[in-house]
Amino acid sequence: MLENRDDKLILGLPKGSLEAATTALFAKAGYKIEISSRSLYPTINDPEIDCMLLRAQEMAMFVEEGMLDCGLTGFDWIQETGADVEEVCELVYGKVGRNPLRWVLAVPEDSDIKCAADLEGKRIATEAVGMTKRYLAANNVKNVRVDFSWGATEVKPPHFADAIVEITETGSSLRANRLKIIDTLCTTTTRFIANKKALENPFKAAKIRRIAMLLKAVLNAEGKVGLMLNVQEKDLDNILQKLPALQRPTVSPLSEKGWFALNTIVDEAVVRELIPQLKELNATGIVEFPLNKLVD
Amino acid sequence: MLENRDDKLILGLPKGSLEAATTALFAKAGYKIEISSRSLYPTINDPEIDCMLLRAQEMAMFVEEGMLDCGLTGFDWIQETGADVEEVCELVYGKVGRNPLRWVLAVPEDSDIKCAADLEGKRIATEAVGMTKRYLAANNVKNVRVDFSWGATEVKPPHFADAIVEITETGSSLRANRLKIIDTLCTTTTRFIANKKALENPFKAAKIRRIAMLLKAVLNAEGKVGLMLNVQEKDLDNILQKLPALQRPTVSPLSEKGWFALNTIVDEAVVRELIPQLKELNATGIVEFPLNKLVD
Amino acid sequence: MLENRDDKLILGLPKGSLEAATTALFAKAGYKIEISSRSLYPTINDPEIDCMLLRAQEMAMFVEEGMLDCGLTGFDWIQETGADVEEVCELVYGKVGRNPLRWVLAVPEDSDIKCAADLEGKRIATEAVGMTKRYLAANNVKNVRVDFSWGATEVKPPHFADAIVEITETGSSLRANRLKIIDTLCTTTTRFIANKKALENPFKAAKIRRIAMLLKAVLNAEGKVGLMLNVQEKDLDNILQKLPALQRPTVSPLSEKGWFALNTIVDEAVVRELIPQLKELNATGIVEFPLNKLVD
Amino acid sequence: MLENRDDKLILGLPKGSLEAATTALFAKAGYKIEISSRSLYPTINDPEIDCMLLRAQEMAMFVEEGMLDCGLTGFDWIQETGADVEEVCELVYGKVGRNPLRWVLAVPEDSDIKCAADLEGKRIATEAVGMTKRYLAANNVKNVRVDFSWGATEVKPPHFADAIVEITETGSSLRANRLKIIDTLCTTTTRFIANKKALENPFKAAKIRRIAMLLKAVLNAEGKVGLMLNVQEKDLDNILQKLPALQRPTVSPLSEKGWFALNTIVDEAVVRELIPQLKELNATGIVEFPLNKLVD
Amino acid sequence: MLENRDDKLILGLPKGSLEAATTALFAKAGYKIEISSRSLYPTINDPEIDCMLLRAQEMAMFVEEGMLDCGLTGFDWIQETGADVEEVCELVYGKVGRNPLRWVLAVPEDSDIKCAADLEGKRIATEAVGMTKRYLAANNVKNVRVDFSWGATEVKPPHFADAIVEITETGSSLRANRLKIIDTLCTTTTRFIANKKALENPFKAAKIRRIAMLLKAVLNAEGKVGLMLNVQEKDLDNILQKLPALQRPTVSPLSEKGWFALNTIVDEAVVRELIPQLKELNATGIVEFPLNKLVD
Amino acid sequence: MLENRDDKLILGLPKGSLEAATTALFAKAGYKIEISSRSLYPTINDPEIDCMLLRAQEMAMFVEEGMLDCGLTGFDWIQETGADVEEVCELVYGKVGRNPLRWVLAVPEDSDIKCAADLEGKRIATEAVGMTKRYLAANNVKNVRVDFSWGATEVKPPHFADAIVEITETGSSLRANRLKIIDTLCTTTTRFIANKKALENPFKAAKIRRIAMLLKAVLNAEGKVGLMLNVQEKDLDNILQKLPALQRPTVSPLSEKGWFALNTIVDEAVVRELIPQLKELNATGIVEFPLNKLVD
Repeated sequence: MLENRDDKLILGLPKGSLEAATTALFAKAGYKIEISSRSLYPTINDPEIDCMLLRAQEMAMFVEEGMLDCGLTGFDWIQETGADVEEVCELVYGKVGRNPLRWVLAVPEDSDIKCAADLEGKRIATEAVGMTKRYLAANNVKNVRVDFSWGATEVKPPHFADAIVEITETGSSLRANRLKIIDTLCTTTTRFIANKKALENPFKAAKIRRIAMLLKAVLNAEGKVGLMLNVQEKDLDNILQKLPALQRPTVSPLSEKGWFALNTIVDEAVVRELIPQLKELNATGIVEFPLNKLVD
Repeated sequence: MLENRDDKLILGLPKGSLEAATTALFAKAGYKIEISSRSLYPTINDPEIDCMLLRAQEMAMFVEEGMLDCGLTGFDWIQETGADVEEVCELVYGKVGRNPLRWVLAVPEDSDIKCAADLEGKRIATEAVGMTKRYLAANNVKNVRVDFSWGATEVKPPHFADAIVEITETGSSLRANRLKIIDTLCTTTTRFIANKKALENPFKAAKIRRIAMLLKAVLNAEGKVGLMLNVQEKDLDNILQKLPALQRPTVSPLSEKGWFALNTIVDEAVVRELIPQLKELNATGIVEFPLNKLVD
Repeated sequence: MLENRDDKLILGLPKGSLEAATTALFAKAGYKIEISSRSLYPTINDPEIDCMLLRAQEMAMFVEEGMLDCGLTGFDWIQETGADVEEVCELVYGKVGRNPLRWVLAVPEDSDIKCAADLEGKRIATEAVGMTKRYLAANNVKNVRVDFSWGATEVKPPHFADAIVEITETGSSLRANRLKIIDTLCTTTTRFIANKKALENPFKAAKIRRIAMLLKAVLNAEGKVGLMLNVQEKDLDNILQKLPALQRPTVSPLSEKGWFALNTIVDEAVVRELIPQLKELNATGIVEFPLNKLVD
Repeated sequence: MLENRDDKLILGLPKGSLEAATTALFAKAGYKIEISSRSLYPTINDPEIDCMLLRAQEMAMFVEEGMLDCGLTGFDWIQETGADVEEVCELVYGKVGRNPLRWVLAVPEDSDIKCAADLEGKRIATEAVGMTKRYLAANNVKNVRVDFSWGATEVKPPHFADAIVEITETGSSLRANRLKIIDTLCTTTTRFIANKKALENPFKAAKIRRIAMLLKAVLNAEGKVGLMLNVQEKDLDNILQKLPALQRPTVSPLSEKGWFALNTIVDEAVVRELIPQLKELNATGIVEFPLNKLVD
Repeated sequence: MLENRDDKLILGLPKGSLEAATTALFAKAGYKIEISSRSLYPTINDPEIDCMLLRAQEMAMFVEEGMLDCGLTGFDWIQETGADVEEVCELVYGKVGRNPLRWVLAVPEDSDIKCAADLEGKRIATEAVGMTKRYLAANNVKNVRVDFSWGATEVKPPHFADAIVEITETGSSLRANRLKIIDTLCTTTTRFIANKKALENPFKAAKIRRIAMLLKAVLNAEGKVGLMLNVQEKDLDNILQKLPALQRPTVSPLSEKGWFALNTIVDEAVVRELIPQLKELNATGIVEFPLNKLVD
Repeated sequence: MLENRDDKLILGLPKGSLEAATTALFAKAGYKIEISSRSLYPTINDPEIDCMLLRAQEMAMFVEEGMLDCGLTGFDWIQETGADVEEVCELVYGKVGRNPLRWVLAVPEDSDIKCAADLEGKRIATEAVGMTKRYLAANNVKNVRVDFSWGATEVKPPHFADAIVEITETGSSLRANRLKIIDTLCTTTTRFIANKKALENPFKAAKIRRIAMLLKAVLNAEGKVGLMLNVQEKDLDNILQKLPALQRPTVSPLSEKGWFALNTIVDEAVVRELIPQLKELNATGIVEFPLNKLVD
């Protein structure tokens, strides 16, 4: 159902845990992707794009070889496969939060292993065999057995492994299995990657850049909100100084003489500190509103 | 539980596949409808309205006879039942997307039937018997048996039917059953219909018109977004010319001299083309924000 | 996992029916709370706060005794437990709507009991034994047996109880069991409560006040929307008079001479009446947009 | 996928509420039917049978016309469609219990309609239009409007209908909608039906008779259990007289002299009365065991 | 819907975790109970019995007062409520297994509390306040605060409680919360209880005794299986000696001369040891079959 | 939680698609295994066994190395990993049916690839890289690229692969993706495997043999049923000749003179042919009953 053509972009979308978050992200960027439970070829409301759902682990390889023009996958799997692809941009988003994920070295709470050097002669279970071996080599540790783990890695120690290398967001699943983290091998986020040849085709390059810009605009807007407030002329300068310099605020006269409306964009994270300060500076009618996209 | 009164509007809501989309639409229009799994009489936050959930197939008949003052149903079923009702407005919304649905004539991929004329002496299964018979008459085809299908129409060919007339959005269920579409009998969208007598009652007529206006305002806003951007005086004219003429943009001075904020409403579909162009014309701080309603 | 410290706030969140609505409310206020199905200690994106999920029934007691610095619970359970806590603010929100809940006295449809006095010698089943006994005392009714009901209170009459005291939002579950309401004992909404000692600690007091302000700002915004409209100079005064006085509207010149944009905040409830009036006064391009927070 | 051949039987299975019960019944008869959620052509472990899932409403017509050789459907739909088919046997089984279903005439609890004659000039909603009209004719009632109901028939009265004709097992759904039953139009059970021509083909006729025999053997066994008990020679006659005459009991000597084991088949319904009686007659080691099939 | 009559038995069934296991148990005893999700009055296939679903906690009280003639509840709640009822029989069955549940005293893994005496001055959270207080009194411990816990008792320590008294089957939920068990207050199983007056009515007493006998026969059969084996005359005595003495085995001649069939009932638990032994003693054709009921 | 000891058996159970079928199989063999959703260490009702859930892919390696004493996995994965383990017995059971699974070579319906030789220069996607390479070597095909597929292998052709090697039961998923099977690489069933050293330990060897015998007895019984019938003396010989020779039938006198009961075990598959024949030979009261285990 896919066909390599000069006037069509083939886009790989990550199947699995990021699936819903990815379609939500594209939707906000203006691309409606519909995934049917019966097909791995989602439809997209842009006739110049064909999509396919693929596991993040195999995305980079297919992009490198040109079966896909571009795709989304994790930095970890780009590294693990060593694929030669162009990284168009980083996209920090996830199933739940907005935190990067980490591949960590973890051992039982009561293990004697304290650092990489202690792994000599031990056995590690992991889904990321290459990354683990590179880590051991970099730390000059030899005689370590690294087993590919087909799943449930965090329950393998202590019987089936002395240590594991596993991906984690908050560490809570490791703690629940009475494991402790002793090192971080790799911090990983999602990347939008492209085939190098595809970027030499002007049509494809332009399309890839546009998608990247819009996805970034959406993520950029997610931590931001609009803020509108009413101030009297006498307080205007004080308040303008207080507002974060993210955007220059709009100043508009109100229907009531001597009053102005300020309209600006701020980090959502500072709102809970900023609003009380604005109230102290006599701002009234403080309104926060949501944004869809923000292009710097 | 329903009672015909001059000072109360009885509104029929479509039960089934459009149920959730309909209550979401009304919610955005300001009407909160709560459907209990135990009752077909939803509550609505307007004491002047009584609601009932009914199948789309029987809505038009009950509106024609005045048991309902107004209701939502498909154009197809208005036609199928031949009910004499007033069509207040068209509302293009659906379970997933915003595309009209189509009733199509479909046959097995390897069938010899290529057009209506080839149906002579054949057997058609369909839920829309009337529509199918009118189509055959219009095409001057006789000797066709039309069976009412109680469900699963798309698996009836080739054993139980030579062709089917079935509703489809994307055609994917037909393709999965190895059927091909050879003609379209009817394109259908949702309609807000009213009883003709009810429209002679000023209270009911006003209420029906108001609901129609608000529902249209919501659907109108759905494909639109607000856009705010900052421009320098020198670029103002170029950018104003570029902006689609949907609404006249607001121009407001920024706190920094020589800069202006533009605020306008555009089609969401053009945003992904428009933003790159605006950036080239030196616009900065481009922010897109969502709308609830838009009344032209 | 919790520890009483002077520089950390311990916050109790209501487990159960209000759980999802509460995290949604905090999210809008800028606090991301993640509840894992495996733990009653949610994470929150503020390192100065520790949270715990507890049943609303036991919240007030734990706040009174200082195991929690603050928490959310119903007015009914504060009363029922008689806990000595500070009520920081009322927060009217619920699982579905925005209506207060009521504890009512209900009896079978065909019961002879018409008022509190008729309860003499009868038997009441309820989850709120204290509230029921205070009600009986206030009505000077004696010789009533009040049974604690472990659940399914509304099916107890007539065999297991003559009357019940039960919480209800719409009364529909009572009606379905053929019970009628004969009195209301208590109308209840959610309260944000704090330990009195904690409020003497300046760090905790400031934090509690800030959370209260932000939660109220979110609820405040929920029934409101932003409204933008374009008007000609000649209609400006008429329209300004028509707009509700909730906020002073912003008046900004449009790019087209003689036209102005008005921007204001109104109650969502009046929008469905207001928009038709504004259209009659020649307003064009009426746009409604959503708000996140509103601080008066 | 189906093909009419002399050496293959085409069997129609009822899709919907009886689906799971039907495959369970066939499984006990030795036919493993696997239904995939993606296909209406179940597989069956008999290469001489092809199956298809179809709605009970259309089964009889397709059997009459020979598209199916045989199938299972309700007596009601055979009557309603007037199809000319051979009824091979009655199979009393259902979604839950083993009771026949009834089509009843029901009216609001407070309706004045007491019998068929009172329907004059009224309006009836029903899914079984033909059955209702035949009932009215048989009762010599004219001027009744009979509307085909597309669903939720039991909530139609009093506003959308004065009475309904609806199928019910226990009447509880009718009672919940405050309707009362005033007459029964038809008592219905499942029937195994066959095409008349197919029964002239010896291969098909033999196969149909065998399926019927095995299905009946399963249903026959369902209300029965095996009973084993130990008795002393002196009590043998008394106990043999007490045992129901369903089957002649087996009498076998025990390893202990003077003792015998009795083995028999009895109605499960009598077991709860029979066992206490057997104990009084000195039976020991009474064991009840399950049966799969019972061929009289 | 319930009514006290001399010729009808009112039976209380435990709502909640034991619900499905209870109806399965009654079904095997010959009583088909159908529970509708909309009603707490299940139907039962015995016109002389009316049932109601009630929480185990309130069963004993309602039986004591005669609102129920009999019911099933836990030994723990009979003790906790101190209800004066007749215990007809013990029924050891549960949601999963066949093990009694235990109410235990548990403390954090690293707590200093080692026994009841260490609870002096501490705080206990529990759903079983009465049982806990009686335990403390019996151990002569004073100055302990016992809080009624509304749920999630096992996460209360160490912040909200120093110790808990909680029900457990395997202790796994306690271990997952890093608690250790230091004492057992009560071992509890299900009991079939009856009102003392009801047992003076011959009709009710007989019915209650019969239900008890049949329920016990089902539970009795659950851990047992039937065993059939073929032996030659020469091995008969050896094998008869080996067979457990639960029942006297039946000895029947086979169609082949010199061979006998043995038929007996054994504990399922010994089958996995017994079968290899029987094979060594030359038994052939060893068949195990299931039982429904076993009356000793 | 696992510990290698001489008096304890460590048993690996396959996690995933066979999980439920495996615990059902062990339950029938007398071993109750309880799997908690929170733990991969199920409990088993034999204190001499410890269990762990592991993916079938890694079972053989862990058994080979002695971390597990024994376990259940597929023949395919034993081959794929080349693990040196003892195969105790074959156990033919599955998620749904009782058919072996096959690893097949499949290509698009319209592909030119007809046999292994045509794969030269092509690309294969598969989860079983080793098996595929061995197959290619055996067929003397070179220059084939074999990609490890992380999932959804059947949608890879034609764009991401020219052919696939995939596991299938009925081929329906392949057909739905318009692929055709052109060769079978391996037919696979479940095997109960053991570590070679463990089999030298008499305790472990005996336990492993016993488990194997019981599991086989259960599977052996699954396709069989017991059959009881009554015959008159004159028909006895005819009927005994007709009965399949699986087991020698038991012949017992009935209470009625001149009648005998026959009791035997037959293949369920022949019952639907056998019963009609028995009836023709005057057998009456034919009863079929279920078996739990059958040891030949």
